[in-house]
Amino acid sequence: MGREAFWGEDPTPLLRVGPGFRLVDAASDATPGFDGGKRAGQAALAEGAGILADQQELLFANSRMGGDERRILLVLQAMDTAGKGGIVRHVMGAVDPQGVQLAAFKKPTRAELAHDFLWRIHARAPEAGMIGVFDRSHYEDVLIGRVRHLAPPEEIERRYGAIVDFENELVDAGTTVVKVMLHVSKAEQKARLRERLDRPDKHWKYQPGDVDERMLWDDYRDAYQTVFERTSTERAPWFAVPADRKWYARLAVQHLLIEALEAMDLDWPKADFDVAAERARLEAS
Amino acid sequence: MGREAFWGEDPTPLLRVGPGFRLVDAASDATPGFDGGKRAGQAALAEGAGILADQQELLFANSRMGGDERRILLVLQAMDTAGKGGIVRHVMGAVDPQGVQLAAFKKPTRAELAHDFLWRIHARAPEAGMIGVFDRSHYEDVLIGRVRHLAPPEEIERRYGAIVDFENELVDAGTTVVKVMLHVSKAEQKARLRERLDRPDKHWKYQPGDVDERMLWDDYRDAYQTVFERTSTERAPWFAVPADRKWYARLAVQHLLIEALEAMDLDWPKADFDVAAERARLEAS
Repeated sequence: MGREAFWGEDPTPLLRVGPGFRLVDAASDATPGFDGGKRAGQAALAEGAGILADQQELLFANSRMGGDERRILLVLQAMDTAGKGGIVRHVMGAVDPQGVQLAAFKKPTRAELAHDFLWRIHARAPEAGMIGVFDRSHYEDVLIGRVRHLAPPEEIERRYGAIVDFENELVDAGTTVVKVMLHVSKAEQKARLRERLDRPDKHWKYQPGDVDERMLWDDYRDAYQTVFERTSTERAPWFAVPADRKWYARLAVQHLLIEALEAMDLDWPKADFDVAAERARLEAS
Repeated sequence: MGREAFWGEDPTPLLRVGPGFRLVDAASDATPGFDGGKRAGQAALAEGAGILADQQELLFANSRMGGDERRILLVLQAMDTAGKGGIVRHVMGAVDPQGVQLAAFKKPTRAELAHDFLWRIHARAPEAGMIGVFDRSHYEDVLIGRVRHLAPPEEIERRYGAIVDFENELVDAGTTVVKVMLHVSKAEQKARLRERLDRPDKHWKYQPGDVDERMLWDDYRDAYQTVFERTSTERAPWFAVPADRKWYARLAVQHLLIEALEAMDLDWPKADFDVAAERARLEAS
């Protein structure tokens, strides 16, 4: 269950979206697997950061020497204010930026819409040795796409299968796909939006459209439920991470990444050159 | 000279490459503007990290609301082992990854060589609100390009002017261009390469080609001198940063970035929506 000592129980199976999972019944304020509170959680995050950074360096090193093709793709999906940005900053921020490829997907441009929905997504898939992070993703095309009727129903239906095929292709190419839905309650979202309105230094994070989407809360919840049922596969499972407590969500996502890396059983790659000969050349230079 | 209190003297004018600068005479083990040693330098870097992160958030915020087009491009050039990677990790690593666009330029691919030399570079120029970092850059085309005769002499000559025009275009579009040459001594490079050979966990960072380039040390020094003379302009100056002490180089580059940001005189952007009306909509939702 990973090298971190601070979990009471491995959170991975507790968070994985399996058969029978119902988002409507899932707690958004729980801390599965972790017994402590906020302070302990923040200390644990700092401890885990070192483990994650070390594992990431091993992944990167093996791609540079030895030709290891493996990589990680973290997909982040959530309602507004759920904390995607905080995950990027506080979990990924502890990792060497050279080993991270971040892609934030916004409303598609005209040029992007002229292609199939996976075109812009596939182009940003991480290279060997990297941890890719999708801040929103192809799932928008079956979330807002479905809720806002941005495509005909039969096209939306088609996309679930296309997504599973696409993710299988990534897995076959050496990608560990970790899909995370940050789960906040409607009340918690209201409090967070209120804070953005109350604080002038947070105004830039507020968009009137956030409230428009909020008004469709139940439709989004249903759309996520369908996403889980159609695309949480054995090879690319979803994790529903309670996110009312930001510190817990960060710790849980950090754990999922550490576990994915430790499953690769990485060690330093063997030199692909003659060390003694290189030493002699260097000393003579 | 920036909000940091730990500089004895503003290092910026001390590091700027102006008329009469001679790389062959420049010290690589000095710490211009900083009076303390390694421990004090590391403490200063941690203090500066908070200042840089705060300034970066302001830059990012103003691009998201208010349409501020400004951005920063940090160009990093150096001989191998000089510490480009450490700058990315320890200076840029303190900044929200969402506000950083990193581009590492390696040996051009066939597809890239089928275009003019600035094609692949221009494509990676940072967006509004971002800090872009070029780990190597278009300057490779007049450094290794010149030393290794990868293009005819008249083409190399042509490139200096093309580079100045290109950088002026970036500046006109709102980019502050900060060009840094990390300056290590030949002896220090030998020690660092030796360490990479001595430590199995560093082998992956070693490439036999590094010694091949090392053997052309004086040619590269001359090529950098020409780069400085032809491309250190008022609008996009070069900074030659002594890099035998890694902690100093990091602190100096952090300062150049902080200063570039403070020169923008950034404040939180004003809401482009009606705050009271949005509060009412939110409470009703």
